Amino acid sequence: MRSMLLFYICYLLSLFLGILCVVFVSYWNSHWRGGFAWDGSALQFNWHPVLMVTGLVVLYGNAAVLYRIPLTWSQNKLPWKLLHAGLLFLALLLSILGLCAVFDFHNAKNIPNLYSLHSWLGICTTALFAAQWTLGLAAFLLPCSPLELRKLLKPIHVWMGSIIFTLSIAACISGINEKLFFALKGSTNETKPYSMLPPEAVFANSLGVLIIAFGLVILKILSNQSWQRPEPGQEEESSEPLLGGDR
Amino acid sequence: MRSMLLFYICYLLSLFLGILCVVFVSYWNSHWRGGFAWDGSALQFNWHPVLMVTGLVVLYGNAAVLYRIPLTWSQNKLPWKLLHAGLLFLALLLSILGLCAVFDFHNAKNIPNLYSLHSWLGICTTALFAAQWTLGLAAFLLPCSPLELRKLLKPIHVWMGSIIFTLSIAACISGINEKLFFALKGSTNETKPYSMLPPEAVFANSLGVLIIAFGLVILKILSNQSWQRPEPGQEEESSEPLLGGDR
Repeated sequence: MRSMLLFYICYLLSLFLGILCVVFVSYWNSHWRGGFAWDGSALQFNWHPVLMVTGLVVLYGNAAVLYRIPLTWSQNKLPWKLLHAGLLFLALLLSILGLCAVFDFHNAKNIPNLYSLHSWLGICTTALFAAQWTLGLAAFLLPCSPLELRKLLKPIHVWMGSIIFTLSIAACISGINEKLFFALKGSTNETKPYSMLPPEAVFANSLGVLIIAFGLVILKILSNQSWQRPEPGQEEESSEPLLGGDR
Repeated sequence: MRSMLLFYICYLLSLFLGILCVVFVSYWNSHWRGGFAWDGSALQFNWHPVLMVTGLVVLYGNAAVLYRIPLTWSQNKLPWKLLHAGLLFLALLLSILGLCAVFDFHNAKNIPNLYSLHSWLGICTTALFAAQWTLGLAAFLLPCSPLELRKLLKPIHVWMGSIIFTLSIAACISGINEKLFFALKGSTNETKPYSMLPPEAVFANSLGVLIIAFGLVILKILSNQSWQRPEPGQEEESSEPLLGGDR
């Protein structure tokens, strides 16, 4: 009972921090960075942090902990599997759109792509995510995939899920840091340099802190053994259709 | 048997990657950044990445997985505990020296301290590490600390250990990214800009990739339940001196 209460406290905290992350990244880019457009300008770039934080961090994190909600354990797993896959598909879609935003902006301004460590990490993380989603669909949702394969792949799928999430947070932190050095040069009268910590810098640094806090709560939920959806018994497994199976 | 073989493959890989990280960060700073000094110049700054990667990542990671080595399981835990605490003390010392290097350099050049997201993350990670080490010493090495307290604190200590390690990797990635934007401006004839990926940029980005690979192997070792040192039986626990206890 105490464990469940603790779970729901962590879960509500993750929802609250996730919403705060989306609000902070949107406000930063609309209020300080001039808002949004899809025209190859800096306003198109502004979609990049918003879509990556919303997709690759917040939606991804919420989709990852879905099976941990005790309320769902007594229910058929299939609808939750579909919601897990659906939310992750939306997260992947937003991440790819977020990459398109930055590639389009770079190409329009003749800025090279994929040179910084941040970009290497970000592109690898999104590629891993796409591979994980595709393999997950093939292994855990296609009715023809054998139960033995699911058993074999499940721990790898769960571990890779945490790793992709951790890498996405490292990519976000390095990205926010890089963007603030680019944006706050202090060479115009418009902005003070980053080193003088103008309000925008404090706000965007705080976004980084919120992302880390969200990440820690999600990783705490994922790592707690007693919050894992119980495995079905052997009898239940053999009578359950593969598509709705627990793996 | 297969699990042990897999452990030793992962363990040797972590040792190899750890050595590569130290070699890469040292070579980057000696070959491309001009070497080392302790005089408030940029050469003093060069100690910062070397000491942080060596202390907060490589030594820390190796100290964290020490208890997972199956060869040590049949032996008295106390010497391994002392080695764990000793290695972590050295890691903490190097990290603090690494922070001194950057503070001294900033102060000598009148550059503000602690404004970037990288610096916020790095200082919090080192502070958490110092707190974790001190609490670990008090709870697990002082003979007067009660067994019940050790039981209560052990899972928190283990989890915090992984979290501090993960945060230190995120801090390193954002730090290398930041340093390359600072160093490779391309405004002089000496260096091409970062965006043109000169050899130094490829080399330092590869250091980032190595750090992530090292981190993933260490986290894999830490997360595998079957590689945890077996808990002692109740009888063994009650007859064992507290200092040498398993917690």
